[in-house]
Amino acid sequence: METTLTLQDILTANEKIKNLLKRTPVVECPTLKDLTGNTIFFKLENLQKTGSFKIRGALNKIANLSDEEKKAGVIASSAGNHAQGVALGAAAKGIKATIVMPATAPLAKIAATRSYGAEVILEGTVYDDAYKKACEIQKQTGATFLHPFDDKYVIAGQGTIGLEILEDIPDVDIVLVPIGGGGIIAGIAKAIKSLKPNTKIIGIESANAASMNEALLKKEVYEISSKPTIADGIAVRKVGTETFKIAKEYVDEIITVTEDEIAKAILFLMEKSKVVAEGAGATPLAAILSNKIKEKDKKICAVISGGNIDINLIERVLNKALLLEGRRYSFSIELADKVGEMSKVVSKICELNANILSVNQTLYTPNIGITSQEATFVLECFGEEHKNEIKRSLEELGYSPY
Amino acid sequence: METTLTLQDILTANEKIKNLLKRTPVVECPTLKDLTGNTIFFKLENLQKTGSFKIRGALNKIANLSDEEKKAGVIASSAGNHAQGVALGAAAKGIKATIVMPATAPLAKIAATRSYGAEVILEGTVYDDAYKKACEIQKQTGATFLHPFDDKYVIAGQGTIGLEILEDIPDVDIVLVPIGGGGIIAGIAKAIKSLKPNTKIIGIESANAASMNEALLKKEVYEISSKPTIADGIAVRKVGTETFKIAKEYVDEIITVTEDEIAKAILFLMEKSKVVAEGAGATPLAAILSNKIKEKDKKICAVISGGNIDINLIERVLNKALLLEGRRYSFSIELADKVGEMSKVVSKICELNANILSVNQTLYTPNIGITSQEATFVLECFGEEHKNEIKRSLEELGYSPY
Repeated sequence: METTLTLQDILTANEKIKNLLKRTPVVECPTLKDLTGNTIFFKLENLQKTGSFKIRGALNKIANLSDEEKKAGVIASSAGNHAQGVALGAAAKGIKATIVMPATAPLAKIAATRSYGAEVILEGTVYDDAYKKACEIQKQTGATFLHPFDDKYVIAGQGTIGLEILEDIPDVDIVLVPIGGGGIIAGIAKAIKSLKPNTKIIGIESANAASMNEALLKKEVYEISSKPTIADGIAVRKVGTETFKIAKEYVDEIITVTEDEIAKAILFLMEKSKVVAEGAGATPLAAILSNKIKEKDKKICAVISGGNIDINLIERVLNKALLLEGRRYSFSIELADKVGEMSKVVSKICELNANILSVNQTLYTPNIGITSQEATFVLECFGEEHKNEIKRSLEELGYSPY
Repeated sequence: METTLTLQDILTANEKIKNLLKRTPVVECPTLKDLTGNTIFFKLENLQKTGSFKIRGALNKIANLSDEEKKAGVIASSAGNHAQGVALGAAAKGIKATIVMPATAPLAKIAATRSYGAEVILEGTVYDDAYKKACEIQKQTGATFLHPFDDKYVIAGQGTIGLEILEDIPDVDIVLVPIGGGGIIAGIAKAIKSLKPNTKIIGIESANAASMNEALLKKEVYEISSKPTIADGIAVRKVGTETFKIAKEYVDEIITVTEDEIAKAILFLMEKSKVVAEGAGATPLAAILSNKIKEKDKKICAVISGGNIDINLIERVLNKALLLEGRRYSFSIELADKVGEMSKVVSKICELNANILSVNQTLYTPNIGITSQEATFVLECFGEEHKNEIKRSLEELGYSPY
């Protein structure tokens, strides 16, 4: 069965919403040209209002409500970007929005949603609690429930990203798009394949929640059992019916990326491109950096879909990525419990020009000798080679870092 | 004595260099509208090639060398953005660049400078060592020494930012520009005051290195004694002669910002605007967030001059900013050395919905009773109010957090 979404729907959406949006920049990343042999652009939807693309679909859905529907307002359940998108979208159109969020949602997101003027109701601890509550309220109030992805107007709104990409990079060869429920890739794929059919559309999923990949393999929408992922924005167990249909027709390939690959991509975007991406937004770059894109000499646009990452999570992601790249070295060693042992170790570290970020020394650990102590270090170093040099040097002194 | 720099110099610079640059985006920050009553834009020069505006001046200087000078190449000394700007600028024009850097410069910056094809020489531990070495090499090779700011062509290159701001925000009222040696503000001020004289130009300096402020007060270039600052890109003890002349004529006001204010601005840019700024680049926002801009209902453009912040420093800045905002709470308490004490404290923290980031409990601290232990906590909390609630609750339990 063919999808009912048309290019005209997306063009109409664009006319309706573009004045309420930021035109997000497309920037080239020269560093990746040397690394990959391709010309890589980022479409920076993390710089969009509310910090993600979700505002596009919400605005278009709201713009297409009847006057009566508008009077009854809209309702949504979300712990994340959809909440902010609906709240700001409703505010822009002057209608009432009720957003049900789990009480465990990050305070920054609750505060942001409220700041856009929405009524926020906190319910339960997981998304499903919030969803159930939203359905109840919907029945009482008659407000329109705004689905985060499986809605023709929402998909058309997200598709406007595709129009902008083609305007800014008319000769783009490949577009990489994150997939959660499938709204953003369905919209972009429909727009781009309609206007420039030889463009390749590659969807990127977190390996821990690859529901579109599974659905395409099984040839039907299928609820997977997912694992937690730092790409929480695309942690969706079941893709949409409409989004699946469009993806089946227009998406050329799906690539999955691991947690470590996503962490390294977030670090790269901060360090090299000077932008903050959330896990979902970094997945296309994760696919590039892990050499999962096999083409050469192509113009590739990676859609960085959002930047709403919890600031406490950023620190954990950076730490993990630095450890993975050998730029941080965390190890423990057993030391004889006598004068001068710590000094020998610390002098060697200093001589090798590594900065000590943390030291903990303790007797209270079960697996060391009774005349020993255990010291745990975290060092800042230059990379894998430097890290190995430090390890070797400590081994030459008679220690066994573990 | 009037400056010799003309608007035409900047327009000519623009024609020479614009095809080699990224046109960096100007983005509005809606959150700041509510906070300040002004419409605030960021000119994102942190997204410029090499991660800072410095490439502009370097490119223009190199474009204006004679064929003979080009053959002899260029030389510069720098531990930071100027090094990368000169290296890439020379590469773009196909001429040889030698950059002398202190051996203590961050490895990422050394690697980046090398990656642009420059010959990097490491010398000494501070900038002055590198500068001396560069002068020596300059005498031997006859290469042109590229001053980081006190050069007419360099200033004209930086001035092209002013042209772009006026194109993107024709009715801008106020432009906020960081000041180090004065190159970027001199160029921008000359460009904007020539084209739209009623625009206010405000310079922002780190309070720890406010050399332009001192020079303007003393009415002459003056070498200050500076303190370390996280805005290392503008830690300049003595502004330029040419830049001083232009600033005296065109800069309306200078505002200084503290380390804490800069840290909070870096956090804001990451969390709200999804971009990474270095300390220097965040100073204009630091002035805004600390209410040092008194105007209302104005269109203000803050130049975010660069994003080359060491990734290890980011973590420290975020931690400091979160502590300052009461979103992280670090405290110690004295506990009786008996069963159940830690449990009482931890249960209370859990009940108040604060996440524990770290706990350390120790006997080995001099100022507690002989039957006591000291526990040090770091908590993630919602803000000042939540933090105070936690403190009060622990006091009600009989503890005295310090």
